[in-house]
Amino acid sequence: MMPSKKKLIKELENYFDRLWDLPRSITGKGFRDSLEIIRELMPHKVIKFKTGQKVFDWTIPDEWNPKEAYFIGPDGIKYADFSINNLHLLNYSESFEGTVSLEELKKHLYTLPNMPEAIPYVTSYYERRWGFCIKHSEYEKLPKGNYFVKIDTDLGKGSLNLAEAVLKGETDKEILFSSYLCHPSMANNELSGPLVLASLYKLIASIPKRRYTYRFIIVPETIGAISYLSVMGKHLKAKSIAGYQITCVGDSGAYTYKYSRQHDSLSDRVANNILKNIKDVKYRKFNPAIGSDERQFCSPGFDLPIGSLMRTMYTEFNEYHTSLDNKDFISFKSMAETTFLYFEFFQLIEKNFFWKNTVMYGEPQLGKRRLFDTIGAKKTTSELDNAMWWILNYADGANDLIKISDISEIDWKVLNEMAEILHDKGVLSYE
Amino acid sequence: MMPSKKKLIKELENYFDRLWDLPRSITGKGFRDSLEIIRELMPHKVIKFKTGQKVFDWTIPDEWNPKEAYFIGPDGIKYADFSINNLHLLNYSESFEGTVSLEELKKHLYTLPNMPEAIPYVTSYYERRWGFCIKHSEYEKLPKGNYFVKIDTDLGKGSLNLAEAVLKGETDKEILFSSYLCHPSMANNELSGPLVLASLYKLIASIPKRRYTYRFIIVPETIGAISYLSVMGKHLKAKSIAGYQITCVGDSGAYTYKYSRQHDSLSDRVANNILKNIKDVKYRKFNPAIGSDERQFCSPGFDLPIGSLMRTMYTEFNEYHTSLDNKDFISFKSMAETTFLYFEFFQLIEKNFFWKNTVMYGEPQLGKRRLFDTIGAKKTTSELDNAMWWILNYADGANDLIKISDISEIDWKVLNEMAEILHDKGVLSYE
Amino acid sequence: MMPSKKKLIKELENYFDRLWDLPRSITGKGFRDSLEIIRELMPHKVIKFKTGQKVFDWTIPDEWNPKEAYFIGPDGIKYADFSINNLHLLNYSESFEGTVSLEELKKHLYTLPNMPEAIPYVTSYYERRWGFCIKHSEYEKLPKGNYFVKIDTDLGKGSLNLAEAVLKGETDKEILFSSYLCHPSMANNELSGPLVLASLYKLIASIPKRRYTYRFIIVPETIGAISYLSVMGKHLKAKSIAGYQITCVGDSGAYTYKYSRQHDSLSDRVANNILKNIKDVKYRKFNPAIGSDERQFCSPGFDLPIGSLMRTMYTEFNEYHTSLDNKDFISFKSMAETTFLYFEFFQLIEKNFFWKNTVMYGEPQLGKRRLFDTIGAKKTTSELDNAMWWILNYADGANDLIKISDISEIDWKVLNEMAEILHDKGVLSYE
Repeated sequence: MMPSKKKLIKELENYFDRLWDLPRSITGKGFRDSLEIIRELMPHKVIKFKTGQKVFDWTIPDEWNPKEAYFIGPDGIKYADFSINNLHLLNYSESFEGTVSLEELKKHLYTLPNMPEAIPYVTSYYERRWGFCIKHSEYEKLPKGNYFVKIDTDLGKGSLNLAEAVLKGETDKEILFSSYLCHPSMANNELSGPLVLASLYKLIASIPKRRYTYRFIIVPETIGAISYLSVMGKHLKAKSIAGYQITCVGDSGAYTYKYSRQHDSLSDRVANNILKNIKDVKYRKFNPAIGSDERQFCSPGFDLPIGSLMRTMYTEFNEYHTSLDNKDFISFKSMAETTFLYFEFFQLIEKNFFWKNTVMYGEPQLGKRRLFDTIGAKKTTSELDNAMWWILNYADGANDLIKISDISEIDWKVLNEMAEILHDKGVLSYE
Repeated sequence: MMPSKKKLIKELENYFDRLWDLPRSITGKGFRDSLEIIRELMPHKVIKFKTGQKVFDWTIPDEWNPKEAYFIGPDGIKYADFSINNLHLLNYSESFEGTVSLEELKKHLYTLPNMPEAIPYVTSYYERRWGFCIKHSEYEKLPKGNYFVKIDTDLGKGSLNLAEAVLKGETDKEILFSSYLCHPSMANNELSGPLVLASLYKLIASIPKRRYTYRFIIVPETIGAISYLSVMGKHLKAKSIAGYQITCVGDSGAYTYKYSRQHDSLSDRVANNILKNIKDVKYRKFNPAIGSDERQFCSPGFDLPIGSLMRTMYTEFNEYHTSLDNKDFISFKSMAETTFLYFEFFQLIEKNFFWKNTVMYGEPQLGKRRLFDTIGAKKTTSELDNAMWWILNYADGANDLIKISDISEIDWKVLNEMAEILHDKGVLSYE
Repeated sequence: MMPSKKKLIKELENYFDRLWDLPRSITGKGFRDSLEIIRELMPHKVIKFKTGQKVFDWTIPDEWNPKEAYFIGPDGIKYADFSINNLHLLNYSESFEGTVSLEELKKHLYTLPNMPEAIPYVTSYYERRWGFCIKHSEYEKLPKGNYFVKIDTDLGKGSLNLAEAVLKGETDKEILFSSYLCHPSMANNELSGPLVLASLYKLIASIPKRRYTYRFIIVPETIGAISYLSVMGKHLKAKSIAGYQITCVGDSGAYTYKYSRQHDSLSDRVANNILKNIKDVKYRKFNPAIGSDERQFCSPGFDLPIGSLMRTMYTEFNEYHTSLDNKDFISFKSMAETTFLYFEFFQLIEKNFFWKNTVMYGEPQLGKRRLFDTIGAKKTTSELDNAMWWILNYADGANDLIKISDISEIDWKVLNEMAEILHDKGVLSYE
């Protein structure tokens, strides 16, 4: 049964709180533990790639597991304690222990001078470094003298993991939903993404019969998407008819839709059709320079039909990639609404038939089928009657429901209601 | 010889007055008598379909011939007398005679509460009922008590009739003009339609030589068009290159053009080209939910190139389908102007050649053909010279006159004048 | 080595002054002498067409060589002396000597009543006449009485000449630059044209290696272009991928771009891409009624991709085809800037590769190639990084550099810089 919005809001917050503190990265225990929690919402298979394995142009890196990290100043104060905020440790930092001068230490500190109260999120996946991220306000007050630095992390052979869940449908044509889970404690970018994806999974799974197959993946960003494509890209290229990258869906800002590279894919047409009824939507053309894993799915060799419905997009909010992208910044109500909007995308895809009128020559006699008032008089046409005429004329087997809705400017749900009535009466068929 | 506008205005009014009172419906003597009057303007063949005959999804109904209808109140007053206004009788009403209470009577009365002084036009072709249409102001004053009702109509086997006139041209490519004649006493919708169509017939017939074949039909709306298509649809699909549904051409409102379903058919291109020089034209995309027989011609199996040039369109004037759509509402001067505008459509279709320049490489030497001033100097180019250069360059056999006019923004008549000069000089040819 | 702008300005003025006074027409010594001066800038081959020779629909006319022309009034004053301003003599005037009344003389005088201080430029190439062009202010003051007229011109068999220079490239695909040289003492239209063309030749010739072949022609307008096409049209049709008619490039007005007939030819795409960064450019669609030799190159049989970048276009400045189109009207600084802008067109054409990413599936690992910062953090993307992502995604072999620049709204020079870096790193290739 489909959960109510109220119930969904609660559930989202509950899972958010449980996931918040886990020390995630592109590999390691934090990522795996997070997947295990999400498994409660979305049962899935875990796919593993071993350190050193080639995935297209990339190589799976060592697995990283942080244990402890801080530094102690000449004032005896403990700074940048990883156990308090996991953003303090440079993601993928190597181990280090020793005493260094303030000058030397500063070479390993990352701050945001323009946002002095924010801890930045910084990574160094593909080059070995050690370092800390702290507030710039704190950085400026560090006293002169020697600092004892302690970073204890494991970096060694292991694996990269990703989750895959598939809901089978009547056909093997597929819709892909993708999100990522490699960021430590940040809210809009990223915990909102996998939470909406997993909730959407639950909604779609509650539908007893589906026309299409739905594939859900949660990966470490970039390298995870590339790894998945290295084994499933060919399949996706053959089967995917639509899909969306789910990210930045947590705040209560206006919706943003980023088009797929094809710009008029089924994903884009569904989004255009549904979003035109919503105020203040921002549209962004496909942009390979800024984005998430849609950049991989839309790389030229694949060019998959993957768009992205977001709230406030990465790079369009100041808190992006800092400690200020936290629970205060997001809204579980908005997150639930976004989930239901994605669910409407699903509904339209399912109902987007190429209907065909069985009476192609002249209009059908509707009176005899009790489909139309037998009294002919001056009156306004009801929305449903209006929908009937548009469908009868345009259901020629070449126009899908979205096209008819776009041409007629009639809501797809009204058209679909009438199409199903006409189908029951034997006036419409489909292949 | 082509009649003057003045003469046409008189003729339109004369025929309007003669046709006004005839009790028309989709079948019956009223329709046939009306056709006989129109025959004076447009000689035609009558095509018959017998009651019970299948035409696509429809069946030809019984023929309906009303004789008498009224009811008498407890106040002794005779109401809704059909002999005074034929809208008073529900179109296709069955016979009834008897005494009924006011309460019972009211179940058979049709009024327009929002237009209390208008008698509505109501039909019940495909379900047997009896009824009257009256002004709502009258309805509200009907005294309590018993009413004697008398409706005498014949409903039985007979035929549905339609008129067809064909003006042959040099080729068998055809242009279709269609109108309908099943409405009783109403003016803009509908008497204006068949009157403009028949007048246009006369204008085109006065031209001694035509390039294309012109087909004119006057039918009972919907069922008549479907009946005609059932025998001639295949032919029309093969031969029609353009056509127009002529309706609502009687008032003096701004022109309205409704596109064919194809949206860029020759009909539409002709209309776009000519109407862009007229102020305040309203454009309406093809809409299968609202309209006349273009909805049948443009049903998906046929998808004929049929547009519709109107004045104020059905549903866009309040008087539509009521007794207020009468002689006061229309203008014979406007009706004559509309006729001449349709005649310009005809002229452009006839002159719309794919001209081909005989000098395709470099421009022709025009001085030696006395086609251009042999003095070269700073001067403004005349409209006709301007037309010449555009034709010479674009007459490559792939652009028709309309296209050249659209690109150059030169009036088609100026281009055509120059094209004919160049043709006489041997510079242009056509296939 | 490429000349500086300063040097170019000087050179343009120097050659302008030397060419100004020569009595040019479509044939004759004035044209040939002018070509010989231009040869210093642009070595070329001269192609000759003999009087009487057929070129498509045209015939090469007699050669015209004016020697002396004036008339003396009853007041003893010498008027319209050709030796003072060669516009005074009707171009292609036949000889005449004799005494005529003022009334008779006036039949042979051409003036501009609306521009009383301007001597008009008038020609009579294809019909024999004699005549003079004078200021209308002078015309009005001519005293009554008899005038002695003296016109001594040679009109007889000879030849029409044109110049052709070709800079070979690695491929035989060609770009055409064309200008004309048949006008006597006028500046914007026309001396600016051949001077910019010859200067552009020098710039392009200074580049050691060219991808494409560049063809430069200087012809007498209309008949010269037709003559050239009569021998080289087939070749141009097969080989030309772009080209420009260079005319009206001398004043300091805003740029004007006239599209080729194809409207989206490579010429037009190059112009659109580069000119969008310049303010106040005027765009004119191809117009066969007004123009220069692009009208011949774009005649329907050839339809070559020839556009035209101008400053203030013929017919859009009042001084056009009069003695007021002189050195005061133009600016050698602007002329030099126009030359360099045409040179940028050349540069973009040369660099407009269909790049192809060698990593088509997922994005390339850029960190390992030192192409991207190995620290991942919140930061603004640099213009060059931005260019990199757009190229990597769109370099699929189907998009040329112009297309990628148009889609990404990134300057082609930035994209090209990055494309060459990626090419050096082995990430991009081209065929």
